Amino acid sequence: MLRVITKEEAARCVREAARLRIPETETVPLSRSLGRVAAKDLTAGENVPAFDRSTVDGYALCAADTFGAGASMPAELEIVGEIAMGEEAALTLRRGQCARIATGGMLPQGADCAVMIEHTQDAGGLCLVFSPASPGENVTKRGDDLAAGDLVLRRGERLDAARTGALAALGIEAVRVFKKPRVAIISTGDELTKGSLQAGQVRDINSDLLRAAAEQFGCEAICFGAVKDRRELISQALERALATADLVLISGGSSAGAKDMTLDLLAALGTVHFHGIAMKPGKPTIFATVGNKAVFGLPGHPLAAYFVFRLLVCDYLRELLSLPPDRPFTKKKLAVNIPSNHGREEYLCVTFEEADGVLPLHTKSGVISVLLGAKGFIRIDRNTEGLAAGTTVEVFAL
Amino acid sequence: MLRVITKEEAARCVREAARLRIPETETVPLSRSLGRVAAKDLTAGENVPAFDRSTVDGYALCAADTFGAGASMPAELEIVGEIAMGEEAALTLRRGQCARIATGGMLPQGADCAVMIEHTQDAGGLCLVFSPASPGENVTKRGDDLAAGDLVLRRGERLDAARTGALAALGIEAVRVFKKPRVAIISTGDELTKGSLQAGQVRDINSDLLRAAAEQFGCEAICFGAVKDRRELISQALERALATADLVLISGGSSAGAKDMTLDLLAALGTVHFHGIAMKPGKPTIFATVGNKAVFGLPGHPLAAYFVFRLLVCDYLRELLSLPPDRPFTKKKLAVNIPSNHGREEYLCVTFEEADGVLPLHTKSGVISVLLGAKGFIRIDRNTEGLAAGTTVEVFAL
Repeated sequence: MLRVITKEEAARCVREAARLRIPETETVPLSRSLGRVAAKDLTAGENVPAFDRSTVDGYALCAADTFGAGASMPAELEIVGEIAMGEEAALTLRRGQCARIATGGMLPQGADCAVMIEHTQDAGGLCLVFSPASPGENVTKRGDDLAAGDLVLRRGERLDAARTGALAALGIEAVRVFKKPRVAIISTGDELTKGSLQAGQVRDINSDLLRAAAEQFGCEAICFGAVKDRRELISQALERALATADLVLISGGSSAGAKDMTLDLLAALGTVHFHGIAMKPGKPTIFATVGNKAVFGLPGHPLAAYFVFRLLVCDYLRELLSLPPDRPFTKKKLAVNIPSNHGREEYLCVTFEEADGVLPLHTKSGVISVLLGAKGFIRIDRNTEGLAAGTTVEVFAL
Repeated sequence: MLRVITKEEAARCVREAARLRIPETETVPLSRSLGRVAAKDLTAGENVPAFDRSTVDGYALCAADTFGAGASMPAELEIVGEIAMGEEAALTLRRGQCARIATGGMLPQGADCAVMIEHTQDAGGLCLVFSPASPGENVTKRGDDLAAGDLVLRRGERLDAARTGALAALGIEAVRVFKKPRVAIISTGDELTKGSLQAGQVRDINSDLLRAAAEQFGCEAICFGAVKDRRELISQALERALATADLVLISGGSSAGAKDMTLDLLAALGTVHFHGIAMKPGKPTIFATVGNKAVFGLPGHPLAAYFVFRLLVCDYLRELLSLPPDRPFTKKKLAVNIPSNHGREEYLCVTFEEADGVLPLHTKSGVISVLLGAKGFIRIDRNTEGLAAGTTVEVFAL
């Protein structure tokens, strides 16, 4: 029989196992870092911008020279030059002087602000300024955006466009990331086949489903295909998988005998930490370690296998790569009552329209149709007696 | 001067241009289809499951043989065989007979339900059933999950784990997808540099930022690097980009002169549809077509360039690939008042904690720091006089 533990206990056990592994890292060029997970904190080594910059097209000047200026009594400043873009502002302004400057140009010595060209008039070498400026106006100060020492990338953050832009701003062209975890995927079951179906056979859904899910999470997936429910075949597949991968997912078989075979083999190879979780779907889940490599025995039912991946395997990967915990992407009200789940943590695929509440998708005989129709999933605590229509629930991405 | 149009007009113009292009398609193996966009509708060619299946380990039988059964008066059925997994159920049950069956096994002729092994007892060739079963109980009917003819993948849907699983269930091993749009990226500006900074220079952020954004959307990005503000250099870069890419993004320059150069060149090469949008950030945006290829002249300011990409360029790509329109991922209440934006559509990076309201991020001098800190963005309509704290706003993913 199954030694059934709670979902929280299972998650804790899985995370503990992940902490025993030291994930490998590698350096990749910034141009190939999208979606990768930073392996170490990274702080700014310099200021962005590196110098005081004008944020407008106009004139760099000393604000004090414009105090008291008005439409009828403009301040008059001598135009002594122009700041070329991309070059050091070589000139130094004395009081009463100004210099032409473009957006992004470097403020020269002696200037403390920039005035928009629209608020001035060029009167033959003199710049007329029709309203008073204040120090710092239209200027981005050195280090205003990022100051040297600022943390710009945390260990466990995924590189997205924003973080890529930040590293580019700092001149960082390569970044230390975790190697993609190698996830081996094995399906088991005498009924599984590829290609044309014979009566009684079904296609191996889990290999493709779990490969896609693993890749979506940023793993490298290695599919071992469907293996018949024979001890030596499962044993061979497990050993090959453990030799090449960081993590093994073995799903199926539908029959109790095959499940027991996997369990026996894992017990012989390493340590079985639990077998059975009080969650629905996903009850018949095995978790074992062989050395410090993790093996998840997932249910054969594709929806159940997917949920165990999405919850427990992702928990393992998050812990391994220092990723932040999973969060719901929105909260919505339930449109209907959902009855009690009798002491098991329950996960339900749901759908919703913009204006309406959340509707659970019927999973009795649907598997793929449920996944196809779902906009997310919700979690029902094992300690609740069901949820009433109108209750606000957290919705997670599939 | 800029001929400024509204954001809606700009979006309409951009989508119209996208409709003039016929996107190329290609067939990829299912195992390399993750994240790709389906180029045509795909319907199920067969039923899933392909036969009536038991959902439990137990016995297949005819429900009528158990009517009236109870704990003290079990129904007695003759066990005439076992259904092997993955094989056709060759035997046919007569009334009063049953067959052993495992979860997923094929229901034999004559059976209309399955009874869990826990509700039975094997009494030497006889199966005792202690409670009445009903027809269809514990059975998934042929086609219950997907019926032949069901739409499983729509043109314009991205392949995710669920859709990959559905195709696997149907034995589909390759899928017709749109080729990844090739996006050429050019930065312009005399101040831009790579590597060590000289006084007055800044690093080219837009090349990396836009490349990551384009790749994140599923495009192939081709970076042409930073080009100095010289007419012949910009012209060369534009022509090379147009020769190799489907879509060109040219950002910068900071100076008005450079902007005019790009505008002049595009007017000479093709048609400039608009120059200037009443939106903030992103006002100085150019949109042109050369033949039926689109060229976006993006602002040099990285945050503005990013928003124009995220809004208008993505609109173009969505239309090109038949993707559904962009949707907010959540709605939340504003924590503070946001003042009027004077007739321009405004986009603001925001942050929020779980319990708290939405806070706009200060963008005066922050560019990269704002993107780094943002959890999404909100849109303020050009017709509102600002938004009051407590207003519910839609939050979009960056």
